Amino acid sequence: MRFSQLYAPTLREEPADAEIPSQSLLQRAGFIRKVAAGIYTYLPLARKTLLKIENIVREEMNKIGAQEILMPIIQPAELWEKSGRWDDYGPEMMKLKDRHERDFTLGPTHEELVTELIKNELTSYKQLPISLYQIANKYRDEIRPRFGVLRAREFIMKDAYSFHDSWESLDETYLKFKEAYSKIMERVGLRYTVIEASSGAIGGSESHEFVAFANTGESNILYCDCGYAGSDERVPYKGEYRIYDEEEKSLELVFTPNVKTVEQVAQFLNVEVRRIVKSLIFKGREGFVMALVPGDKELNFEKLKAYLNDQSLQMALPEEILEKFGVPIGFLGPVGLEDVRIIADHGLKYMRNFIVGGMKKDYHYVNVNHGRDFKIQEWTDLIIVEPGDPCPICGKPLKGEKGIELGHIFKLGTKYSETMNVKYMDSEGKLKPFIMGCYGWGVSRTLGAAVEQLHDDNGIIWPVSIAPFEVVITVVGRGNERQFSEKLYKYLLEQGVDVLIDDREVSPGVKFKDADLIGFPLRVTVGRAFKNGKVEIKKRTGEINLVDASEGKIFEMIGNLLKK
Amino acid sequence: MRFSQLYAPTLREEPADAEIPSQSLLQRAGFIRKVAAGIYTYLPLARKTLLKIENIVREEMNKIGAQEILMPIIQPAELWEKSGRWDDYGPEMMKLKDRHERDFTLGPTHEELVTELIKNELTSYKQLPISLYQIANKYRDEIRPRFGVLRAREFIMKDAYSFHDSWESLDETYLKFKEAYSKIMERVGLRYTVIEASSGAIGGSESHEFVAFANTGESNILYCDCGYAGSDERVPYKGEYRIYDEEEKSLELVFTPNVKTVEQVAQFLNVEVRRIVKSLIFKGREGFVMALVPGDKELNFEKLKAYLNDQSLQMALPEEILEKFGVPIGFLGPVGLEDVRIIADHGLKYMRNFIVGGMKKDYHYVNVNHGRDFKIQEWTDLIIVEPGDPCPICGKPLKGEKGIELGHIFKLGTKYSETMNVKYMDSEGKLKPFIMGCYGWGVSRTLGAAVEQLHDDNGIIWPVSIAPFEVVITVVGRGNERQFSEKLYKYLLEQGVDVLIDDREVSPGVKFKDADLIGFPLRVTVGRAFKNGKVEIKKRTGEINLVDASEGKIFEMIGNLLKK
Repeated sequence: MRFSQLYAPTLREEPADAEIPSQSLLQRAGFIRKVAAGIYTYLPLARKTLLKIENIVREEMNKIGAQEILMPIIQPAELWEKSGRWDDYGPEMMKLKDRHERDFTLGPTHEELVTELIKNELTSYKQLPISLYQIANKYRDEIRPRFGVLRAREFIMKDAYSFHDSWESLDETYLKFKEAYSKIMERVGLRYTVIEASSGAIGGSESHEFVAFANTGESNILYCDCGYAGSDERVPYKGEYRIYDEEEKSLELVFTPNVKTVEQVAQFLNVEVRRIVKSLIFKGREGFVMALVPGDKELNFEKLKAYLNDQSLQMALPEEILEKFGVPIGFLGPVGLEDVRIIADHGLKYMRNFIVGGMKKDYHYVNVNHGRDFKIQEWTDLIIVEPGDPCPICGKPLKGEKGIELGHIFKLGTKYSETMNVKYMDSEGKLKPFIMGCYGWGVSRTLGAAVEQLHDDNGIIWPVSIAPFEVVITVVGRGNERQFSEKLYKYLLEQGVDVLIDDREVSPGVKFKDADLIGFPLRVTVGRAFKNGKVEIKKRTGEINLVDASEGKIFEMIGNLLKK
Repeated sequence: MRFSQLYAPTLREEPADAEIPSQSLLQRAGFIRKVAAGIYTYLPLARKTLLKIENIVREEMNKIGAQEILMPIIQPAELWEKSGRWDDYGPEMMKLKDRHERDFTLGPTHEELVTELIKNELTSYKQLPISLYQIANKYRDEIRPRFGVLRAREFIMKDAYSFHDSWESLDETYLKFKEAYSKIMERVGLRYTVIEASSGAIGGSESHEFVAFANTGESNILYCDCGYAGSDERVPYKGEYRIYDEEEKSLELVFTPNVKTVEQVAQFLNVEVRRIVKSLIFKGREGFVMALVPGDKELNFEKLKAYLNDQSLQMALPEEILEKFGVPIGFLGPVGLEDVRIIADHGLKYMRNFIVGGMKKDYHYVNVNHGRDFKIQEWTDLIIVEPGDPCPICGKPLKGEKGIELGHIFKLGTKYSETMNVKYMDSEGKLKPFIMGCYGWGVSRTLGAAVEQLHDDNGIIWPVSIAPFEVVITVVGRGNERQFSEKLYKYLLEQGVDVLIDDREVSPGVKFKDADLIGFPLRVTVGRAFKNGKVEIKKRTGEINLVDASEGKIFEMIGNLLKK
């Protein structure tokens, strides 16, 4: 391909709405254009990269015996009514009516459709297990689409579904997908980790997330040299608790005017932050709940939800708190609190003479002791684990990094086959609901995540396997240099190299800038060194190699550099 | 792939809703399943074939320098309001609202989107010409979806758009697409023809259709050995007109009770059909119109619409005719008719003493002569040309065949760039609207058309290039036969042959039936002949070859047979 003919309009300026690097870089480097909030057109460079990602995903799926199908994007409402999700799915589901006023949805996912598909076609245990997958658009009407292709309303997913007659069979297939997903991560060239993502809400079935590291990721990952990794929302706290070996002092109510945050209280009272206990009020299915955590730790909302098994739980609003307790936020505390369930982090067990809100504007209690001043009947792990805290497996300090979820695999069990009444006949002639697994991979998200993980101030740094072109030949100067560039271009094309020639009538500076911005793994420049019989091959990551100006030698060097 | 693991549920019975062979065969052979009217899931066999079709289309597009992009399926209403098509497109357009009540459509086509895309990005004549294409789902809410994947509501299209600064440049690109489309037809292995499809309604720009022959096709194609081909809706009549060299006789009104059709009138009055003139009433923008054609010819509605330049023209309803003229349909005629525009086919010029309706129930006029009994002021070509009529180019008798439109290319001109105000700067610094071309190819339709053209009573006969598998090894018997089949399977896989092994525990009869039904180009059977050291290779089209039971020899023979 010739750059002069390539439709890749690069922009010099930062797009106004770019919150993170990939959003800015993919637009500036001419990969994507926004059509509406969360809806994008993929230009030729992005389409090429997406095809490469799709191909890697497809190959790894085929290798484990999953079979590719293609289900419709528009799905009839009746299927979702059968599973009970038509009304439950919420406003993220895009709905429409056809000309006959029949209801459809733009599929956010395909469990219903695939389960109905196999109904009456997979009838015997002899046909199991089977895995079906597709690569197709999905739709989620995010209330605030953001982060470019990372959180879009229209996006490309690979979704797979497996059907089994036993949990052992599901375990086997699940493991195959887990391995395939790791291979996909390796082949797309991203640093990643696999974390357990079991969630109490869906019955404790096994689930794993595949997370690509990136500073801008929405997931906080904690991991250890021993191989353990988890999201900070779920890693259990296995550290020691500080023991306050002191006598109980007398409870005091202290005037603390306008002193609200933990830091302000500590400063005002001249104590360490960990002397304070945070009292937080939530509202859920069963009304208000107070959670208590040591002042130097953050409350882990996911752990609290899981402990209460209440997905509807939300932080109480200041006005709700004022109405219920007559106290502004910042002065809440457990002393004297009635009719509210109190749940405390294990860390409180060993605290003595601590400080809590006075349940009265501008007052705090000091020298509080549980058991004496108020009662705690529920203890659990309620804190967010941080880098440096001990690994729950081996005890070594955890490391922390942010990441972007690209894959999620899940043991569904019989959730859909039961509600939709889809059964097979077992070896004894009994009808049983299928045991299912489901496996998602964000294809267009991989494009964004790669840029988040791999870029510098000058632009994108594509991994070779998903680069839109592996090599760019930058034509500098005219005469012999240009002639040799053209000859080299033809030669490399014939050898099957995925090469672009930058033959545009712009300055070398612009060409170099664009090559860095777009992020080709290798840039071959036939320039100044050409009079000495040399050509420069520069890796996007910086390394420069001079090589004899012979097509064969250059091809060989390119081969070596791309392999590394 | 092993058939025992393949998800290809074949059906023994005819699906209830199948109107044409492809609809029945694709369901029976386990390629597609219906999800809702005009909405299908493609099972693994169909997905494989579709990927092969997509790949052929993609390669031919890339070869002519078109660049692949991917535009969103959901398109904001504002773009369609700019072009004026939001309200004009009609009920075939599927519309929806997002959670913020913004209007979107599921794109039936992408002219608006692509034109907006290049706005402000293609700014100079130096960047032209450029061609962009995508392969993606399209949506048309057909009032009565039918014929399976041939007329679906959700379907896969390749759509391309080109931008130019001159008509000459458009001509050049148009020609490239025309040649690429012919190559696609050849590569997918279908008999086809290219017909001119210029339509007066869109300004007389050039347009061609690529039609695959099929008995069930909705297009009637007339073609000639000289290379000419056209749709019967548009082929001009170049035959001779019969001259009635006779004296004018006296007009008579004859009682013809319950005699309505041309055939009934001819029989009742004992005359040839061509002695009668058909009088047909239409209703259009300017009210009622009467069209006259010789009794032995069919009126060509498209020619009449083109002559009147009125796309809203429709056949008048019997109740409208009764109300307006007081005559039931079947007794209409031009004699005594007032205030209605009369348009006659050239064939009437030479007719004498003909028969028309009496404009009175149960009566016909005989010995009618125009000029004397009524006036004709407008003459044109109004008839449907039939096989046997002369070729408009060389005069030889035309042949006729039915076909399915797979490709349509079109010189759009400045229609969208003008209404949407999208301009480039020419070499003199003047802003001008882009000249555009658009080029559609029905990808999922190709799947259906191939089956319509290539099948027999036993099933589908896939062309090698788009067959889901090129070869099936049918395992018959156990022991050595099975062992050799497995060895052969592994060998062929290693050689890169696209092979399926039918290792199911079913009878040979079922395997043979399914192989024919699914339509693999070659079936290798290690069966009875194996004791004599032979293996049978049968082409789906019938030819049987015996070959030595050696992997190498079999591979060689397969190679030869697939090439043919």
